[in-house]
Amino acid sequence: MSSIHWHDILVSDYLLALLIPLVLFVLTLQILGSPQDLPDIIFGYRNARADAVGHFSVQRAAASYGQYAQLSRSELATMRKSYGRMSWAHRRIGYELGYTQKLARLEMSIDTNTIVSDAIANLAREEFADELSHEQHGISGDIGRVRESLKHFVRDWSDEGRTEREKIFRPILDVLRDVPGEKRREMQVLVPGAGLGRLAWEISELGYPTTANELSFFMNLALRFLLSPEHTRGPNQHVLQPYASWFSHQRVTDTLFRKISFPDAVPRLSDNFVLAERDFLSLRVPKGTQGYDIVVTLFFIDTSLNVIETLEHIYAVLRPGGKWINLGPLLWTGGGQAAVELSLEEVLKLAETVGFDVSGEDAPELTRRRTVECEYTADKAAMMRWLYQAEFWVATKKL
Amino acid sequence: MSSIHWHDILVSDYLLALLIPLVLFVLTLQILGSPQDLPDIIFGYRNARADAVGHFSVQRAAASYGQYAQLSRSELATMRKSYGRMSWAHRRIGYELGYTQKLARLEMSIDTNTIVSDAIANLAREEFADELSHEQHGISGDIGRVRESLKHFVRDWSDEGRTEREKIFRPILDVLRDVPGEKRREMQVLVPGAGLGRLAWEISELGYPTTANELSFFMNLALRFLLSPEHTRGPNQHVLQPYASWFSHQRVTDTLFRKISFPDAVPRLSDNFVLAERDFLSLRVPKGTQGYDIVVTLFFIDTSLNVIETLEHIYAVLRPGGKWINLGPLLWTGGGQAAVELSLEEVLKLAETVGFDVSGEDAPELTRRRTVECEYTADKAAMMRWLYQAEFWVATKKL
Repeated sequence: MSSIHWHDILVSDYLLALLIPLVLFVLTLQILGSPQDLPDIIFGYRNARADAVGHFSVQRAAASYGQYAQLSRSELATMRKSYGRMSWAHRRIGYELGYTQKLARLEMSIDTNTIVSDAIANLAREEFADELSHEQHGISGDIGRVRESLKHFVRDWSDEGRTEREKIFRPILDVLRDVPGEKRREMQVLVPGAGLGRLAWEISELGYPTTANELSFFMNLALRFLLSPEHTRGPNQHVLQPYASWFSHQRVTDTLFRKISFPDAVPRLSDNFVLAERDFLSLRVPKGTQGYDIVVTLFFIDTSLNVIETLEHIYAVLRPGGKWINLGPLLWTGGGQAAVELSLEEVLKLAETVGFDVSGEDAPELTRRRTVECEYTADKAAMMRWLYQAEFWVATKKL
Repeated sequence: MSSIHWHDILVSDYLLALLIPLVLFVLTLQILGSPQDLPDIIFGYRNARADAVGHFSVQRAAASYGQYAQLSRSELATMRKSYGRMSWAHRRIGYELGYTQKLARLEMSIDTNTIVSDAIANLAREEFADELSHEQHGISGDIGRVRESLKHFVRDWSDEGRTEREKIFRPILDVLRDVPGEKRREMQVLVPGAGLGRLAWEISELGYPTTANELSFFMNLALRFLLSPEHTRGPNQHVLQPYASWFSHQRVTDTLFRKISFPDAVPRLSDNFVLAERDFLSLRVPKGTQGYDIVVTLFFIDTSLNVIETLEHIYAVLRPGGKWINLGPLLWTGGGQAAVELSLEEVLKLAETVGFDVSGEDAPELTRRRTVECEYTADKAAMMRWLYQAEFWVATKKL
């Protein structure tokens, strides 16, 4: 009881001393604006602008690539501090296990990856001079999305990613290879959620005029880094250590720091391979046409915050009789962010409602609806894997 | 340019009006305490106490079970609001897909699960009257850990979990079954990180005096719920809908709401099955002995914030010649929370350093070090799975 009593007295004293300025402060705020405005009011225009920068905007992405080294080193410093808090005896064991050496190798990996992330930040400043003309300091970098993009270099553009690509690209490319070569030139293909663009580029290499559509500038800047003859002159010019940042689930320490060269093939923009760096929902049908001939979605539809709108828009940008090829899981954005989170059964019903004929499980082998077991930017050497049962289907926009 | 100018003026006006009370306020704070203390200073003792409650304490766990219904309904309200923000046309499609019905079924699932969570909260109040004598309102419930515990009822104590249990329990139980029955009575087994206690109970059923050791009261309260003759009278008395809260990765909506009965077997405390509800590192050797004969760790060692200390303590509580049986992955607590995050290679080296002989890959089949591919509280019907390559080994404390 005595401790509560002691606290009660202190609380009263504190409150009394704070009361007058607090009341004045709160009253002023209530007259001038809500408490959420406080940072804007105090720190002024620049920070308010930084907060208004979208999660996937070129500003946020450029700032994040630019801050990769600093944020990674700050994480490393936390790990070193945590290690240093152990007893002397434990640190000696840690040293004998080579753990200090392991942290030093992590530091070198950060340096390796920084060469790429800094180059991407520089490219952003060159190619988006207008958009990035304001100070970038107020923008907090998203290191998670930078790491995700770096791993996508592996999935999309390295030898290491070949097996994973093979598994998820093949069902789609097989359908597209079935069209005679001379017909492909006349067919427009759209790939929404194209990411680092490998699938879209492969489709363009088959002879289809292909548009890679991507909203996130974390992806767009990374793809531009490959497309730029100044930054990427030849195959396997760049090196990453993309697995170094996560020590869990490793059999041996060496695999953690393995170097991945990329790109295994060098993409360039052409009449057959163009970018649309914007929200898919803002795309219109190509000028002078009735719509795209084919829309290909890979690990895309479940990223929608309103999948009804997304499927309607796939329908809208296709010409009558056009094809929608899909492969992916159903990992919705949770916490009530997505308006609806559908089961596969419901997605297929929705596709019919919107106006598609979806190939059944009894269709010819090439277009048969089926489950494709696959992984997603996986570390092949790790002791843990996320296994997706992605669903593949081909749907036709009814005439 | 004009918009910046306009802002600059406003900022000055706001700042001027706020300046005097703000300065007074900040000065007072600097004299009396840091800004972090502000909530304590304003709201007093009770909230400061709630913040001091540990993440795994009986207070936090009891409050979380008690708040399950309220927190779940608040999440559901967010989902309904998000759905309601769609256009009328989209809501009509949603209705035809049965989505409003799906949300209604989620609401009923919350009611089903609340019967269990409320019963556990009541049990906590009965069995921990002293610890829970203060008001619980200030404690923010952790719904994630409640859901995790409910899923553990499935893994540990339902028919649905049998396959998963079989896979990860068998290598351990096979070693223990190899000891002649009459010898088992004389051997003390400790299971740190026992969770809902099924493995420890199975070991006790083999005839070993077994101690289930668990730090988290999310787990301990749930296990007590099964152990209590008042709350659990017979097999499959209780029902949960543990998968309802995550709509992703489902083929059909029905599987989302399937009901799981538990427990498939009813555990009771006995001379052979006792609890130690505390931090493993605080355990001592059983009185009048040189130590436990066997320590069994299942999905445990990687939860350590200092695995060197953990392995040393496993060594310390074992008698010379005692066995340590381990099965689990290496998913460390990241962000510099764990002092060291070791690879398998390093963990095995550490075990030798601490004083263990670890069975090699050339040992007899029963104790051979090997990889066990397994899942962890998985939803068997889902389109996505986490696949662990857990490592199994038997180690001997050197004489």
